[in-house]
Amino acid sequence: MSRKEITILEDLLSSNKKIAQDIRLYLKAKNIFSINLMSSPGSGKTSLIEKLIEELFPKHPIAVIEGDIETDLDAARIKAKGVPAWSITTGGACHLEARMIAQVLKEISEPTEFLFIENVGNLVCPASYDLGENLRFVLLSIPEGEDKPLKYPKAFLTAHCLVITKIDLIGLLSFDLEKVKEEARKINPHLAIFATSARTGQGVKELATYLLYQRKQWLETNA
Amino acid sequence: MSRKEITILEDLLSSNKKIAQDIRLYLKAKNIFSINLMSSPGSGKTSLIEKLIEELFPKHPIAVIEGDIETDLDAARIKAKGVPAWSITTGGACHLEARMIAQVLKEISEPTEFLFIENVGNLVCPASYDLGENLRFVLLSIPEGEDKPLKYPKAFLTAHCLVITKIDLIGLLSFDLEKVKEEARKINPHLAIFATSARTGQGVKELATYLLYQRKQWLETNA
Repeated sequence: MSRKEITILEDLLSSNKKIAQDIRLYLKAKNIFSINLMSSPGSGKTSLIEKLIEELFPKHPIAVIEGDIETDLDAARIKAKGVPAWSITTGGACHLEARMIAQVLKEISEPTEFLFIENVGNLVCPASYDLGENLRFVLLSIPEGEDKPLKYPKAFLTAHCLVITKIDLIGLLSFDLEKVKEEARKINPHLAIFATSARTGQGVKELATYLLYQRKQWLETNA
Repeated sequence: MSRKEITILEDLLSSNKKIAQDIRLYLKAKNIFSINLMSSPGSGKTSLIEKLIEELFPKHPIAVIEGDIETDLDAARIKAKGVPAWSITTGGACHLEARMIAQVLKEISEPTEFLFIENVGNLVCPASYDLGENLRFVLLSIPEGEDKPLKYPKAFLTAHCLVITKIDLIGLLSFDLEKVKEEARKINPHLAIFATSARTGQGVKELATYLLYQRKQWLETNA
């Protein structure tokens, strides 16, 4: 990139960061703990949210924001579970930005414990945009292959939690789970790692327990 | 996006288009037919190129440019097949641009019939950048799910050919092949569609035949 392009990108990111910080304060005041889910298209973000809803809802009220380039197919899937969902269609843009989230937040009127924000399917651009979330998930599905942490390091570097999805396919495909964990932790030693399957339910309860624990810790801090 | 951002993007795309047109003329003079492969991370772009190499090479000389954010793992896989390969690491950028291709082209010194350009794994941004290619492939793997044409229409709209990959998994996963073909053709009625598997080899010979035919047609035109 030329110097001019870099400067413009820095301005965009800096103004995004300010809005994200406002969002974090706003959500903290309402005790809403938010999770930003990033992955390639088709890694299973919506399916994972559906399974977490089955595990947590309605005991723990949930709201969902679905980011997509086009269509509101994903929001419709979430609403079918009885959970309020908002669709943000970016109309071509490859990631969500904090200002898009800010516009939707005022519509969340019911008491809410967890807000899931499903980013646009893209393992590159979303990693650069803070959405004011408390936790960032990166999903990696077994069919995508084990070289992804090395090839898309920023997504793994900026995430708090790596959720391996479609783990039920591991016997069928060549995927070295231990190698992926090791390479992901080389990039980000603090990464929590879960292996899940939306089809069999494997690992979903553990991930839900992790979310409840993270929210509890967060409620007890002033951050 | 703000008006200023849109203007800057238009400038970038217009200067990219000019370089792409120069590349097309340069490659035409050398009879090198080029294919730009776009898909999500992990859809199997490198594996498809490997299989096409097995089908076409060495009778039809091939060169490969591998675009990645980080690492030259993919170029190493191609070189292991005896085919010259160049790695472009974008260092964070989510797509290849024509000027990156132009820098590599002068290093292709041997007579070459096909140049495969593997774009960065991303179903969004690469669709906006002409690389001077003659054919554009969009890959969609069975595990990614059947909703991708509707959700990422630009990739399907700008491609000449949809290559469905990992077709050997179709019995195991829920994927309605006819529905995907129909929705992809609603977006782009001219799309050629192939169903392939790098594991079983299904559909690779047909795709190689299509490439040979497309190149022959192109050699006979003045375009």
